[in-house]
Amino acid sequence: MRSLVLERKDELRIRDLDPKEVLGPTDVRIAIKTVGVCGSDVHYYTHGAIGPFVVREPMILGHEAAGIVEEVGSAVQNLKVGDRVCMEPGIPDPQSRASRLGLYNLDPAVRFWATPPVHGVLRPRVVHPAAFTFKLPDNVSYAAGAMVEPLAVGFQAVSKAKLTPGAVALVTGAGPIGMVTAIAALSAGCAKVIVTDVVDEKLAVARKLGPAIMTVNVRSQDLKSVIARETDGWGVDVVFECSGAAGVIADTVHHGCPGGAIVFVGMPLQPVPLDIVIAQTKELRIEHVFRYAHVYPRIVALLGSNQINVDALITDTYAFEDSVEAFDYAVRPKPSSVKIQIELGK
Amino acid sequence: MRSLVLERKDELRIRDLDPKEVLGPTDVRIAIKTVGVCGSDVHYYTHGAIGPFVVREPMILGHEAAGIVEEVGSAVQNLKVGDRVCMEPGIPDPQSRASRLGLYNLDPAVRFWATPPVHGVLRPRVVHPAAFTFKLPDNVSYAAGAMVEPLAVGFQAVSKAKLTPGAVALVTGAGPIGMVTAIAALSAGCAKVIVTDVVDEKLAVARKLGPAIMTVNVRSQDLKSVIARETDGWGVDVVFECSGAAGVIADTVHHGCPGGAIVFVGMPLQPVPLDIVIAQTKELRIEHVFRYAHVYPRIVALLGSNQINVDALITDTYAFEDSVEAFDYAVRPKPSSVKIQIELGK
Amino acid sequence: MRSLVLERKDELRIRDLDPKEVLGPTDVRIAIKTVGVCGSDVHYYTHGAIGPFVVREPMILGHEAAGIVEEVGSAVQNLKVGDRVCMEPGIPDPQSRASRLGLYNLDPAVRFWATPPVHGVLRPRVVHPAAFTFKLPDNVSYAAGAMVEPLAVGFQAVSKAKLTPGAVALVTGAGPIGMVTAIAALSAGCAKVIVTDVVDEKLAVARKLGPAIMTVNVRSQDLKSVIARETDGWGVDVVFECSGAAGVIADTVHHGCPGGAIVFVGMPLQPVPLDIVIAQTKELRIEHVFRYAHVYPRIVALLGSNQINVDALITDTYAFEDSVEAFDYAVRPKPSSVKIQIELGK
Amino acid sequence: MRSLVLERKDELRIRDLDPKEVLGPTDVRIAIKTVGVCGSDVHYYTHGAIGPFVVREPMILGHEAAGIVEEVGSAVQNLKVGDRVCMEPGIPDPQSRASRLGLYNLDPAVRFWATPPVHGVLRPRVVHPAAFTFKLPDNVSYAAGAMVEPLAVGFQAVSKAKLTPGAVALVTGAGPIGMVTAIAALSAGCAKVIVTDVVDEKLAVARKLGPAIMTVNVRSQDLKSVIARETDGWGVDVVFECSGAAGVIADTVHHGCPGGAIVFVGMPLQPVPLDIVIAQTKELRIEHVFRYAHVYPRIVALLGSNQINVDALITDTYAFEDSVEAFDYAVRPKPSSVKIQIELGK
Repeated sequence: MRSLVLERKDELRIRDLDPKEVLGPTDVRIAIKTVGVCGSDVHYYTHGAIGPFVVREPMILGHEAAGIVEEVGSAVQNLKVGDRVCMEPGIPDPQSRASRLGLYNLDPAVRFWATPPVHGVLRPRVVHPAAFTFKLPDNVSYAAGAMVEPLAVGFQAVSKAKLTPGAVALVTGAGPIGMVTAIAALSAGCAKVIVTDVVDEKLAVARKLGPAIMTVNVRSQDLKSVIARETDGWGVDVVFECSGAAGVIADTVHHGCPGGAIVFVGMPLQPVPLDIVIAQTKELRIEHVFRYAHVYPRIVALLGSNQINVDALITDTYAFEDSVEAFDYAVRPKPSSVKIQIELGK
Repeated sequence: MRSLVLERKDELRIRDLDPKEVLGPTDVRIAIKTVGVCGSDVHYYTHGAIGPFVVREPMILGHEAAGIVEEVGSAVQNLKVGDRVCMEPGIPDPQSRASRLGLYNLDPAVRFWATPPVHGVLRPRVVHPAAFTFKLPDNVSYAAGAMVEPLAVGFQAVSKAKLTPGAVALVTGAGPIGMVTAIAALSAGCAKVIVTDVVDEKLAVARKLGPAIMTVNVRSQDLKSVIARETDGWGVDVVFECSGAAGVIADTVHHGCPGGAIVFVGMPLQPVPLDIVIAQTKELRIEHVFRYAHVYPRIVALLGSNQINVDALITDTYAFEDSVEAFDYAVRPKPSSVKIQIELGK
Repeated sequence: MRSLVLERKDELRIRDLDPKEVLGPTDVRIAIKTVGVCGSDVHYYTHGAIGPFVVREPMILGHEAAGIVEEVGSAVQNLKVGDRVCMEPGIPDPQSRASRLGLYNLDPAVRFWATPPVHGVLRPRVVHPAAFTFKLPDNVSYAAGAMVEPLAVGFQAVSKAKLTPGAVALVTGAGPIGMVTAIAALSAGCAKVIVTDVVDEKLAVARKLGPAIMTVNVRSQDLKSVIARETDGWGVDVVFECSGAAGVIADTVHHGCPGGAIVFVGMPLQPVPLDIVIAQTKELRIEHVFRYAHVYPRIVALLGSNQINVDALITDTYAFEDSVEAFDYAVRPKPSSVKIQIELGK
Repeated sequence: MRSLVLERKDELRIRDLDPKEVLGPTDVRIAIKTVGVCGSDVHYYTHGAIGPFVVREPMILGHEAAGIVEEVGSAVQNLKVGDRVCMEPGIPDPQSRASRLGLYNLDPAVRFWATPPVHGVLRPRVVHPAAFTFKLPDNVSYAAGAMVEPLAVGFQAVSKAKLTPGAVALVTGAGPIGMVTAIAALSAGCAKVIVTDVVDEKLAVARKLGPAIMTVNVRSQDLKSVIARETDGWGVDVVFECSGAAGVIADTVHHGCPGGAIVFVGMPLQPVPLDIVIAQTKELRIEHVFRYAHVYPRIVALLGSNQINVDALITDTYAFEDSVEAFDYAVRPKPSSVKIQIELGK
């Protein structure tokens, strides 16, 4: 099985590596068609580790995937051979305390693709539980199907925020996660989504997401005065922090309105000093996001009824044979790049 | 002041009637431009009463209104002469127990336009608290501004439902309230909104609201099997009951999914037998809607950023001079009619 | 294995019947010590069926149980031989859609003790999943442990109500479920719990639950005026309907305050006419309860720290040999009886 | 009017100072009976300011008060002369945006007793809005009535936490606010409340609050291992941070369970570094508390039905004539002191 293998930090190549997966009765075997390159994939490539997760053995990369069902286990009822699908990359223990509570993303026993020592899916085929495999409607391409994974982070953030229609949201950071969060915030009925960044090219992409997007380059514009003007001095209903930058995180408490919410999506490298007294005077609610739960079928449905569209975010596509090139590009992409995808089996 | 006066049941005419309102320091005086005809206005015309509210004195009709500010009280800060505005028609006592809790719509002391003995606004001008008067963005017409009132009922229903994006909703009844509720449900991110009625012309209008609308004529189609097919047998996340019909209300408990919600928006004439045991096996949550609170500025913002559009619903427009004709038409409208509006001061 | 077997409607006896259960790796084998008699057990005895659940084969009764662990499966970590325990009687499919959402009580595949065709636990021993078996603290007797099951219904109701401390609650019906709901409402911080019934002896038991209990015999007292007096005319924050009686259910909408909640715990025999318009004017929220989920460990903890006490409710205790006599008594108990329990293995 | 006047930092005395308040139609005049000494009163005494609030003119101290109604305004209906009462010390603008939303404590226009330039109530009488004055039941003493104000902070914290019965809570810091928060947490049905401090005498007082209180002196015991033992390694459901100490605040993210909540009640002097990534892996919810709203009548009701008791917290009582002495003691109290109160008019 020709796979994209991270041998160790900085050493990536296509070679034979077959995880030799067995099809259980509730599993499906899927031929992979499209895989998105995630920042975490790139980080394993350039650093060999993310926090406590260290690449000690050769590992196949990739976890944002769509494909087609080739074989189904004997007990599978929701899928059949030939179904076009996308897959949730984390498999929890259904009997864990977290899973029983409905918080399966918080189960420490989750096995997640391309997180050491679990192989990812930049390879021809994979075996996966049918329960975490979702049929794509006919109008949803493999490329869009492979976007469900990053979208899921945005929709998890919006679910935590408990938005009601007509809200004003702030999304700090116009990288891929900021983009999908902006899409999710629009989907939840925001009347206005203010997106910030320091790179104009990224903000230009954000504006393509719809007329309710307003962008602010915080290098040249004063965000506080923009928010004051747009909200009559009240503050935004929700801040979605997607930059992970310490200074931006610290400022969030100034932007939220009384009774408003802050959702920390971006992951900072260090603890960040927060002005709790400011947060207290407004009784802000701070929510935290870790991956996602229960949102995959909802996003697939929204793509299926054309309520959301991700075409503007898929900026670069490579053939599987050029995967190493794709990753090298992903290390230093053009400012206007958002999502780089790799196509298999063409 | 030439006003549209309901003298008594069945007797409506334009004549001089001036409520002689005084402009207080926190009030504005508004020249009325557009007023929508509501089912309650028509009901007062044809029945002279709605429940305990009986027309005992001549009363000016109309409460769905937009206009332009002509004069502002000495303490008003949020508005100025020339602002184009829409108005929330119910004025609560800010010191009441309900108001203090943020539930001002439930304050029994609310004074509501065109609810006896309070005059409505089918007249040249009205004095209103600035706190319940909302500036329209430039791109929002008076006609759209006068739609904020019925939209508010739909958005209140959606707020009660606590929708998250990607849900499947059922809206029973494609009258004006069903239509605005469908718009609100789409705005909150529903992946699919199934709208039912018995009149094909109304369902044809509903389909104009967007590609995520699916319509079912329950005279010719079996709703249960449609829901089973569209939700894999699970049921819809939320039912918005907008028909007020007893049989439709009774069926709602069959349509909701485990853990789902039902929102009763339509007002039935009699108590309705509900199968509580069915509702228990699914632990359904039933919410009730009474007018609205806190949603006006949110809807104005959504119209302002073009996130919602009500053009398809404004089907009939009359000049003020033809108001009686408009009401007579409203008593027996064409099946495709949704909202009849009256324009003043042209 | 000597078991209490319901042969068919009206025919109950102790005889050998061994379900021959196999201990799986995640199971424990429990020697049963105390089993409470539930209204459903009695109903199967006197009617042979509850709704769609019909006793077609001889079935062991009993599902409110506590006991001691005799044997543990190879993978069990949370329990050991000799642990005193109580058991959740319903076992869901952890992979079902409802279970994944955290709503395992709504999984249609739940296997529930003493619900045909599943045997109950009025027998010497049972095999049960360790995940649904909970260790009792030393100060919690088997009798109290066997009360966790009915308590769980009351705590599920309180969880749905979303009570905050200082609320005023109404509990309609002072049967066993009304009693445990009153205990749960007190535990959640109600400042006052008004309990109604038509039998003075039951109300006398209710008053033993604490000084915040106020009782109303609705045969002789006017409940509406009591509520008006106790709440300054505002209404109660929550109504817990535990009678299942149609007239009582219909009245609930009159008792709740604006923005208040009604929880339907009791199961009526027929659909009940509800005045939806009254519920709308107060925007009442109606919640429904079906068994329980996630509350067992919480109740065990509350018993362990003496925050709740159920001694007043255990009014009648029989030896296992006298089980038939216990059930015959349960068919026509004294008015002051609340919970009848059966002790095994003494 | 003999009042306790803070002339400036460090200079406190009893002298004549009459704010000359006029009784409006919705006001009552109250003879003050008991006033608690709050940390903020002491801080104004020793520092002359709290953050942006600077004592520039002589100011009467005291805001935790109970008394008896001497005179009622012409429109007052809920109170009469002779009623024993406690008073909410902050008066919001009922027309403000925050107040309309039900968040009146977040209204920046709130006038709050003993917050410059508003006088407090360590004086014979005060005029106050009847809407923020609450009748005490006969069994509630003036001393207990004056405790409603600090209790309100604890109940606001519990309201934010959204506790359900059977939870395990951690309260960090056993000062007055930690104590009232522990009472509120018990009232909301916590099965166990772990209270921490570094002073054994304070923890000894905490243990008097009930058998569900467990104390940990973090100088001598390892809190993490206590929590691991008491929660089977899962973490506590809610952390109520009441110390305001930076290190304690930073540790809160380690103590909460997956999906759990942290409520920041204590006010730190500086921004505090928080490990957001830890909070993300558990999707913690962080809530902030600023004073309180809507909780006074609930606490009065709980005191009235003996569901809570504050006697253990009232450790020191002074006559009004000895107020300066009381404050000097409050600057350096015994470790076992919790609440110091001053009695007037005896």
